Amino acid sequence: MTAITVFGTGSFGTALANVLADNGHDTLMWGKTAKTVEEINTKHTNSAYLKEATMNNAVRATTDIQSAVDHADIYLVAIPTKAIRTVLSQVDERLTSKKQFIHVAKGIENKTFKRVSEMIEDEISLEHNGGVGVLSGPSHAEEVVIQQPTTVAAASSCPELCKTIQDLFMTDYLRVYTNEDLIGVEIGGALKNIIAIASGVLAGLGYGDNAKAALITRGLAEITRLGVKLGADPLTFQGLGGIGDLIVTCTSTHSRNYSLGFALGSGKTLQEILDEMNMVAEGVYTTESVYHLAKQMDVDMPITNALYHVLFESQPVEEALKDLMGRTKKSE
Amino acid sequence: MTAITVFGTGSFGTALANVLADNGHDTLMWGKTAKTVEEINTKHTNSAYLKEATMNNAVRATTDIQSAVDHADIYLVAIPTKAIRTVLSQVDERLTSKKQFIHVAKGIENKTFKRVSEMIEDEISLEHNGGVGVLSGPSHAEEVVIQQPTTVAAASSCPELCKTIQDLFMTDYLRVYTNEDLIGVEIGGALKNIIAIASGVLAGLGYGDNAKAALITRGLAEITRLGVKLGADPLTFQGLGGIGDLIVTCTSTHSRNYSLGFALGSGKTLQEILDEMNMVAEGVYTTESVYHLAKQMDVDMPITNALYHVLFESQPVEEALKDLMGRTKKSE
Repeated sequence: MTAITVFGTGSFGTALANVLADNGHDTLMWGKTAKTVEEINTKHTNSAYLKEATMNNAVRATTDIQSAVDHADIYLVAIPTKAIRTVLSQVDERLTSKKQFIHVAKGIENKTFKRVSEMIEDEISLEHNGGVGVLSGPSHAEEVVIQQPTTVAAASSCPELCKTIQDLFMTDYLRVYTNEDLIGVEIGGALKNIIAIASGVLAGLGYGDNAKAALITRGLAEITRLGVKLGADPLTFQGLGGIGDLIVTCTSTHSRNYSLGFALGSGKTLQEILDEMNMVAEGVYTTESVYHLAKQMDVDMPITNALYHVLFESQPVEEALKDLMGRTKKSE
Repeated sequence: MTAITVFGTGSFGTALANVLADNGHDTLMWGKTAKTVEEINTKHTNSAYLKEATMNNAVRATTDIQSAVDHADIYLVAIPTKAIRTVLSQVDERLTSKKQFIHVAKGIENKTFKRVSEMIEDEISLEHNGGVGVLSGPSHAEEVVIQQPTTVAAASSCPELCKTIQDLFMTDYLRVYTNEDLIGVEIGGALKNIIAIASGVLAGLGYGDNAKAALITRGLAEITRLGVKLGADPLTFQGLGGIGDLIVTCTSTHSRNYSLGFALGSGKTLQEILDEMNMVAEGVYTTESVYHLAKQMDVDMPITNALYHVLFESQPVEEALKDLMGRTKKSE
């Protein structure tokens, strides 16, 4: 049994806290919202994110960051990319020893273009940083929490940390594969949200499965192009954290990013959609970051560019799509 | 305007005949069933395969193989793998000059383990063979015939033939990418049907999107392993004829192979299912071929093996799945 603190009480953090408890680990969740924390402690549910799913009774939650920090030597960081720095700077202030950080955030920071592991390294002082890894793959929280068979990749540049993550999370229903390509797994996880929004746009416009499969295929190609330029192994994008996660996010209505795209394709504006959502659609911020990063790195990313024009420059979706489809005869 | 004969009046042959006519080509279909041929000529529909979709009026059909042979110098071969040799030997007997063959069949022959282009080369005498290519990709006929945006790969070892196929089929709604890796595109097209059956089995058993995405990802890995051993370019499997076609077949209810798997997962026997189907589910034959081929080539194909045990050795699906999931801790 290992003690673990899960920072964040969103859907994926909650589902993974449940996995850890199923595996017998001493799991404490930390969240800002007293109501959610109380619901987890008393009803063993998190209805705002996971509806009626009930969690393992052993999972406890707190709003007190000091207790959360003191509880464990391993932290699961399950908070949105935009909140990572704020929360971790508060954590670092309270640390007196080295901790290991496993994150599940899927984004690229605006302006700095940093991956989440780099943001963690910025916020956690060197003397408190015992290693950073990521857990990523085709894993809708809604299915993980009801023990549907799921596979994920555990990635870190440190092989021992990969193995630690695998041992912590591997259960009957969650298979964990190790992968030492931290860059590739983080890039795959973050960028799939861009393609998922675009996939939702196509569906909202009434396009079929052929168009969606083409989009995912070409989307994988542009993710791989940027990833390789940033130092990733191209094979990573053929794995669970690449095409696996891309497929599940682009073909399932569980995905917030897909739903946001669907609403866009159906004619709503971005502002109207964001006003209605209670969860973050990370893909919007990631599109902004990647559009500028790709320009800077001189990588051709036609789908990201088209979506950027729709999201941030109010280009009508039909027009953006026409630009995308109306390209010249090509070889693959 | 080019004259083209389409051999076969199934769903994909009909949809592509329609594309060719939309592109202004003089298109004649050949089929064995007088009723279907008459329906195409008089009502411009093919209701057995494509329900109420209406075709371009310019598409004509015949049951007379001599007229079909004489009509054109380019043939689109759109018949099931099992019928290829019978039909093409009848064609070859009637030939007096070289013809170009573009096929859309997706299978590997039992016992010989030949790809469809190799079967065509066997049946068409050298002096009549002006080149063989394949058109493949994420392209459900039901969507192509109603002009839904679709992308496909045109592959041949001869670059000029790739270009010819691209020029013949490229329209507003069908984008054709050339690819010189004939082996890879044929292997991708044939083997995706195995994974599609397995994907249907998972859904029939009540498994969710996470499991399906994992299956597709691991399926792509085993298809790539065999393909590379047979001389294909690994990059082909990341393209339209690889992951693109795999996604569309594994996630859409249009697919016969997926539907067959779904029925298996729901508890029906293979014989009960085959008795009810009016179309061929090529994946059953392909599973048999690939199981033996992989053994002979010493390539690890766990999903194909598990499905073979279910289809041909009456192993219960739950048991086959348990064997597949209960493997040891791995890296990707």
